[in-house]
Amino acid sequence: MADEVILLGANFSMFAMRVKVALAEKGIGYEHKEQDLANKSQFLLEMNPIHKKVPVLIHNKKPICESLIILQYIEEVWKDKSPLLPSDPYRRAQARFWGDFIDKKVNDAARKIWTTKGEEQEKAKNDFIESLKLLEVEIGDKPYFGGEYFGFLDVALIAFYSCFYALETIGEFRVEEHCPKLIEWAKRCMEKESVSKSIPDPKTVYDFVLVLKKRLGFE
Amino acid sequence: MADEVILLGANFSMFAMRVKVALAEKGIGYEHKEQDLANKSQFLLEMNPIHKKVPVLIHNKKPICESLIILQYIEEVWKDKSPLLPSDPYRRAQARFWGDFIDKKVNDAARKIWTTKGEEQEKAKNDFIESLKLLEVEIGDKPYFGGEYFGFLDVALIAFYSCFYALETIGEFRVEEHCPKLIEWAKRCMEKESVSKSIPDPKTVYDFVLVLKKRLGFE
Repeated sequence: MADEVILLGANFSMFAMRVKVALAEKGIGYEHKEQDLANKSQFLLEMNPIHKKVPVLIHNKKPICESLIILQYIEEVWKDKSPLLPSDPYRRAQARFWGDFIDKKVNDAARKIWTTKGEEQEKAKNDFIESLKLLEVEIGDKPYFGGEYFGFLDVALIAFYSCFYALETIGEFRVEEHCPKLIEWAKRCMEKESVSKSIPDPKTVYDFVLVLKKRLGFE
Repeated sequence: MADEVILLGANFSMFAMRVKVALAEKGIGYEHKEQDLANKSQFLLEMNPIHKKVPVLIHNKKPICESLIILQYIEEVWKDKSPLLPSDPYRRAQARFWGDFIDKKVNDAARKIWTTKGEEQEKAKNDFIESLKLLEVEIGDKPYFGGEYFGFLDVALIAFYSCFYALETIGEFRVEEHCPKLIEWAKRCMEKESVSKSIPDPKTVYDFVLVLKKRLGFE
């Protein structure tokens, strides 16, 4: 029996983008069900009753939630093609560490850049750049975070790259001035079809963030 | 060459307790270096320059940080004895999901119980109990979260049990009234030597929390 794979996602969810990239890397066909996050479907609430968020990967009727956990699930189920994690336990731990760092530090600062103003926004910009500088050091002169091959941490971070333009425009700064290697890395990733097909155009992300800012009253 | 295993911990750190329990389960000898978190050592800052926190597991000179990531590392390096994670990818994803849930929801509510007052504390108590009720449903009638065997999620949550008495006393509530199965589970876990030897007496945790409350100005 063929696997049934469904992704509950939303076009501008960076966390859902991660799952799209990973599925594309592994060459797994799936049905995408776009979710309206302003009016959550009963199906989404049933599939992710705890966090009520996208992405949810539903594999043969079983739901898996939280993007980094989904990436590890995909890696463990579809082992044979395009490994996302190295086999060495220490390097696996490092990839998990930085993935967690992105979710805690980079994500938190990114959100504050577009939801705050004045001093608070300045602090968020500074935190965002300082977090990215740590990742700039981490990638060093490697082509990908995983080394020679595009892997777990590349997937985790490249989804965030789609919102750099929006954050830079709203916050009036340029990541490239602080983290040139990271921008080179991002451009390298964008040349991969698994990435370019899964990540929306930065300008449409910017337009979406402006709409969201207005809808949520952060203007 | 024998493995060199060092744990940078702190007696009342629930996150460090997790690592102690996992190392005890696997029967791994290690050197414990107690850290003074009010006056962090240069060594701790070098080993965990990003978060500057305990626990840090240093295995043959290489540091691994973040307790749930350390548990997975321990599992992957010392595979043969007392598996912490099931082999089935879906059950592994579930264990990771609830581990993450504990760190995000249970931990956040627990901290607020002893750092806030009045309405905010009432909300934290409610959030804490509601989070534990979800775990009460998750364990159901199984002896352990992992099923028949004590595993990853059991390790992740039992460390928190050490502070239940402190939280209950400060917040004037009883977990057992809401989650009797969880308390039965905790008592079952405490019968294991790997747990009872790694987790301090609840009354000393309470005394420590009172000192911490005073030191941090939350009185």
